[in-house]
Amino acid sequence: MRNHQRGKLYVISGPSGAGKGTICKAIAGKDNIELSISMTTRNPRPGEIHGKDYFFATKEEFLDNIEKGNLLEYATVYENMYGTPKDAVISKLERGRNVILEIDIQGGLQVKKLMPEAILIFILPPSLAILRERLVGRQTDSPEVIEKRLAETLNEIKLLGEYDYYVVNDELEEAVSAVKGIIDAEARRVPDKVKPIIGRYEREKGETE
Amino acid sequence: MRNHQRGKLYVISGPSGAGKGTICKAIAGKDNIELSISMTTRNPRPGEIHGKDYFFATKEEFLDNIEKGNLLEYATVYENMYGTPKDAVISKLERGRNVILEIDIQGGLQVKKLMPEAILIFILPPSLAILRERLVGRQTDSPEVIEKRLAETLNEIKLLGEYDYYVVNDELEEAVSAVKGIIDAEARRVPDKVKPIIGRYEREKGETE
Repeated sequence: MRNHQRGKLYVISGPSGAGKGTICKAIAGKDNIELSISMTTRNPRPGEIHGKDYFFATKEEFLDNIEKGNLLEYATVYENMYGTPKDAVISKLERGRNVILEIDIQGGLQVKKLMPEAILIFILPPSLAILRERLVGRQTDSPEVIEKRLAETLNEIKLLGEYDYYVVNDELEEAVSAVKGIIDAEARRVPDKVKPIIGRYEREKGETE
Repeated sequence: MRNHQRGKLYVISGPSGAGKGTICKAIAGKDNIELSISMTTRNPRPGEIHGKDYFFATKEEFLDNIEKGNLLEYATVYENMYGTPKDAVISKLERGRNVILEIDIQGGLQVKKLMPEAILIFILPPSLAILRERLVGRQTDSPEVIEKRLAETLNEIKLLGEYDYYVVNDELEEAVSAVKGIIDAEARRVPDKVKPIIGRYEREKGETE
């Protein structure tokens, strides 16, 4: 008998540099929260394990998965394709696990369309000036790329209204506990089917009368 | 200029003995949370202050308030009338305060009808057996009253589906932090009007370009 509730699906998005990756790493693996594993056509890097870090696939396999409707969302980044395998996510949810997708806003909107019960969390930078500082500090992007990212950021933020929650990542620790808090609160939402909860008390009443 | 968000209205209900009163006292006064002050026709007890503990009113005044639609909900308990003055609640919300109504389930449903944006939290006992123990331990009710309360409890729990969240009050401290957590998470909900949030970034972009 399954006596757990179905898990919930969370999409965590935000402009590049807002800190969604760090936040996801901090909350994954604990409190019944699992990161979704993406499928990608890019080559494995040293140490990366198939089925743990990514599901590695050829371009042909990837396109086949799209065609069969096996992906909740997908996107092409620098000629490599990345996507979220639907079956893996659903099987985790059915085992009562909460699943987190760290994907961009376009991907989040794709997921919402296919799984309207998904809960979308938008990670915001405290300001564009601070976002620029962070991107510069990373030393991974050229000044041109950074300016391009900043220009995209405002367009992304304009889609905030499609999301369910927003967390301003000012202090990382606070942002992490805010996201955890949202997941905890959502676990206390009255589900559509209240029968399992009420049933516990009904059975007890039946026993004690 | 008002630069705060409007506060949110929380209804906290639960069967007698589930602990809603203790939970409300624990969270009120902090973190921008205020208890609503009820109007009542009962006589003030020593030390009770009009406008702080209750708005004391004559039966005539109370009925007049009902007639004028000034009450969000009301009920008669042991010949005394209790109700929630709408204006006082709305003025607190407009000042950006979160307001808590500690009322029974019927009252909660009345509020939801008049203010559908209210967030309803149901406090559940861990079990009916533990609820009975608690009611006996209080030593305020006769065995007959306790049995009557327990019989009512199941009917109340059956209305759980009308509520938004539920918190099982097993350990008081955990239940208090769960309710606080719900209020924190709700503060991070993307509002219907996202313009004020997006506007901050737009203005900054305008300034930095």
